[in-house]
Amino acid sequence: MFDTETLALLAPAVQRMAQGQPGLPALTDAAQPAVERDAIAAVLLRAAERMQDNYPYAHPLYAGQMLKPPHPVARLAYALATFVNPNNHALDGGRASSAMEREAVAGIAAMFGWDAHLGHLTSGGTMANLEALWVAGQLHPGRRVVASEQAHYTHGRITEVLKIPFQGIAHDARARMDTTALQAALDAGEVGSVVVTLGTTAAGAVDPLPQILRLRERYGFRVHVDAAYGGYYRLADNLAPEARAAFEAIGEADSIVVDPHKHGLQPYGCGCVLFKDPSVGRFYRHDSPYTYFSSKELHLGEISLECSRAGAAAVALWATQQCLPLQRGGAFAQGLQACREAALELHRRVAEDSRFLPGPAPELDIVVWAPRGASASEVSARSQAVFEAAAREDLHLAVASFPRAMFPHWPLQWDTDRVACLRSSLMKPEHRAWIPEIWSRLARATDTVLAA
Amino acid sequence: MFDTETLALLAPAVQRMAQGQPGLPALTDAAQPAVERDAIAAVLLRAAERMQDNYPYAHPLYAGQMLKPPHPVARLAYALATFVNPNNHALDGGRASSAMEREAVAGIAAMFGWDAHLGHLTSGGTMANLEALWVAGQLHPGRRVVASEQAHYTHGRITEVLKIPFQGIAHDARARMDTTALQAALDAGEVGSVVVTLGTTAAGAVDPLPQILRLRERYGFRVHVDAAYGGYYRLADNLAPEARAAFEAIGEADSIVVDPHKHGLQPYGCGCVLFKDPSVGRFYRHDSPYTYFSSKELHLGEISLECSRAGAAAVALWATQQCLPLQRGGAFAQGLQACREAALELHRRVAEDSRFLPGPAPELDIVVWAPRGASASEVSARSQAVFEAAAREDLHLAVASFPRAMFPHWPLQWDTDRVACLRSSLMKPEHRAWIPEIWSRLARATDTVLAA
Repeated sequence: MFDTETLALLAPAVQRMAQGQPGLPALTDAAQPAVERDAIAAVLLRAAERMQDNYPYAHPLYAGQMLKPPHPVARLAYALATFVNPNNHALDGGRASSAMEREAVAGIAAMFGWDAHLGHLTSGGTMANLEALWVAGQLHPGRRVVASEQAHYTHGRITEVLKIPFQGIAHDARARMDTTALQAALDAGEVGSVVVTLGTTAAGAVDPLPQILRLRERYGFRVHVDAAYGGYYRLADNLAPEARAAFEAIGEADSIVVDPHKHGLQPYGCGCVLFKDPSVGRFYRHDSPYTYFSSKELHLGEISLECSRAGAAAVALWATQQCLPLQRGGAFAQGLQACREAALELHRRVAEDSRFLPGPAPELDIVVWAPRGASASEVSARSQAVFEAAAREDLHLAVASFPRAMFPHWPLQWDTDRVACLRSSLMKPEHRAWIPEIWSRLARATDTVLAA
Repeated sequence: MFDTETLALLAPAVQRMAQGQPGLPALTDAAQPAVERDAIAAVLLRAAERMQDNYPYAHPLYAGQMLKPPHPVARLAYALATFVNPNNHALDGGRASSAMEREAVAGIAAMFGWDAHLGHLTSGGTMANLEALWVAGQLHPGRRVVASEQAHYTHGRITEVLKIPFQGIAHDARARMDTTALQAALDAGEVGSVVVTLGTTAAGAVDPLPQILRLRERYGFRVHVDAAYGGYYRLADNLAPEARAAFEAIGEADSIVVDPHKHGLQPYGCGCVLFKDPSVGRFYRHDSPYTYFSSKELHLGEISLECSRAGAAAVALWATQQCLPLQRGGAFAQGLQACREAALELHRRVAEDSRFLPGPAPELDIVVWAPRGASASEVSARSQAVFEAAAREDLHLAVASFPRAMFPHWPLQWDTDRVACLRSSLMKPEHRAWIPEIWSRLARATDTVLAA
C-alpha cells in the first residue's frame, strides 16, 4: 500500500540540488546537534509503529472522511525541498520555491480561466478562506457575509473572528444554497458578500453559481467561491449539467479558494486563495524592517497574511503539476472522473436496495445514505451501528449529521430535527474498481445491524 | 552539505508502518493517476535544478535571515508521515499523529513549566499569534493590545484583521520594550493585553518580562509572550542575567507562542500556541456535522481555528523531541548555546574593529552592526553595499532597518530617522566554529566598500 520503490529517486535529486552550490568550503564538522544514526533509525521505527494506529487511509476500503493519498511525486518533491527548507514569505527565504509557487498558482488560476490574478498558497483552507473574507470585509465594511447553512462551518467562525456579520442561508433538498432564501436575505439589505460553495464538505453539494451571479447583477455583492473541496472538478467531463454550469461560471467569481491538499494530490499544508482583481494586494501591505532588501521583485509575503510559510508545499505542487497538468481530458482529470463514477455507482446501488435510504444524487464524489429505520432517531442509531460494523469488516466509512430538509421523501417518523447518515468521500480513482468489494462489506455490516 | 546517507532509513520505516494494516486485501491495480517512474525521476531532477537557485541556507556561510536546517530526523519523520498524510483536525484524520501532537506539545509546555495547559500546533507563527490575540480579544473585548514597536509586524496587522485596537510601545536602545512607555499606555487605560516578545525577529531583543509582570499586578492585563523565535532559549545556560530572568518568568504568561520551525529543528509549517488556562478552549467551540463521530475523545480541531492541518508536522516534532529531549544541558540546549556563543564572538569582533559600528550586545544569537559612515544615509548605503560585496565572497548576510533610538552612541550625522544595518541570525551551532571564516570574508567585503 505504501510504495517505497520511488524512494530511490530521492537521493539523486538531493545530490543534483547540492550541485548548485559548488563554491563553498566543505563542512568537515557534522551538523549539530548530532544524533547517532542508530538512534535516528530507532526513533523512526518507533514513529512508524505509532503511525500504525490509523485508519488505512491509502486503501480503497477507507471510504470515509476527505483523505486522499498524496501522489508519489508530491511526496518526493516535498521531501526534496525540506533539505533546503525554503520559507516562501520572502524571496530571501526561497527564491526558487517562490518562483515555483507563482507558476503553480498561475496554473490553478488558468484552470479557472484567469490570466491576470492575485493569488498565493496558504497553509490550508482556513487561512485561504480567512484571507478571502478579510478582503471582502475591507471592501464592504459592516456588511454581512452570507453562506449556505451547508457551507463549511469555518465561514461562520472565521467571520466571527474577523468581526464581520454573518448569516446562514437555507438550502434545498440537494444541500445547495436556496436562491429564494438568498434573495430574501439580499432584499433585507446590507449583504456585502455571498460565499458560494462548489462542493460542500458534508455532501459534496454544488451551489447554483449561475443563478447567484444573476442575482449579483441586480444586487451588486461580492462572490467568493469556496471550492476548497471541489475546485479541481472544473476539469471533469462527467458532471451533471447544473454542476457543470456552476464550474463553468467559476471564473466570474471575485475570489476562489481551492485546497491542493484535498483533491490536488498534495500532502497537507497546501491551500490556495485567488483574487480576480490584483489590486486587492493593497490590503496586504505592511512594513517589515528586515526582509525585503535583497530584491526589488514582489515577495509573496507582501500578498499574504501568513509570515513563515513552507516553500516545500510549492515545490511539491509544482512538481505534481509538471507530471499531471491541469487539463481537461488529461490523466489528472480522468482520476477525478473515476472518483465521480465510483460515487454514482455506489449511489445507484443504495437507491435500488431496500435496506437503505438514499441521500441526494451525488454532484461530485461524495455519497450520503442511511440504513432504513422507522424514525430519524432509529436511523441515526443504525448509521452509527453500521459505521462500527463496517469498520469490523475493514470498511471505513464516515458518519455525518444532516437536517430533515435534505430528505423530504424518506418514509420515517421525524422525531429529531437532524439525522445521522453514512457518508463516503470516494476520493481515490481506485474506488471505482473497488465498489463491488465495498458494497459486499457494507451489505454484510448492514445485515448484521438490521437483524439485531 | 545535504547529507543523503540517512535517507536509507526511510524505506524500512515506511515498511514498518505498512505492517500495521495486515488484514486488507492487496491492491493489484496501481494507484491512479499513474505516472511513469521515469517521468517522476525527470521532474524531480528538474525540481532539484530549480532549487539550486537559492542562498546556501544549510551552510554556515549563510548567516543572514532566520533559516535553520531541519534536523535529519525531522525531515525523515515528516517524509514518513506523508505516506499516510494524516490530518490533525480530527482523530478520524490521524489518530496516531494527534496523540503524538499532544505529547510533543506537552513537552514544549513542560519546557515552560506548564503541566496543565491548552495547546496545539499550528501551520506557523501567524496563526499561533492570531489565535492567542483572538482569545485575548474575547476575554477583554474592546480593549487595546499593545506591543513593542520592535515586536513582529504581525501583531499590528493581525489585530487589524481581528478588529482589536492596537498600540505600539516605544523601545529602548537595546530594542526592548520600554516599561516607562508601557506604564504610560497602561495609565491611559483600556489596555487588555500586552505582547511581550522574547526574541524580536529583527534584533533578537528580549523584552523585560519580570518588570512587565510586576506592572500586571497593578494593572491587571493579559500577558501574551511571543517567543516564536526565542522560546527554546528557555533551555540555554549562557544568557545574560536579564534575558535569563525573562525566560525564567515565561511560565507566568497567559499564552505563549513558539515556532518549532525556527529553532526547533523542524521543517516549515510548525508553530505552537499554548494557553495557561485550559478553559479558553470554550472559545473554539463549533458545530461540525461530520467529523466527531468516531470517538468521544478530544479532537484537536475542537481547540484550533485551523481545520485541515498537517499531522506530518506533529510526527516530525515528536520524533525530534524523542532524539533530542527539551532538557537543560542536553544536546539540543547545547546547540542553542553554541549559536549564542557565535553571536557573542561576532559582536566582540565588530565592537573592537574601527571599520564597524556595533549594535546592542546580542541577547540571543542575532547580531546587528553596520560599516562606519559619516551619516545615517551613508551607513545605510554602505550596509547594502557590504551585503552585496559579502555575497560575492559567498558570505550571505541580511540587511535590516532600525530606528535611530537604537544607536544613541553612534558618532554620525542623523540625516534619516532610520538606518539600514547588517544583521546575522546565527542559528546554526556550526556558526561558532565558522566565525573566523565569516569574519575574514566580512572584512574583505567591508574593505572593498570602504575603499570605494
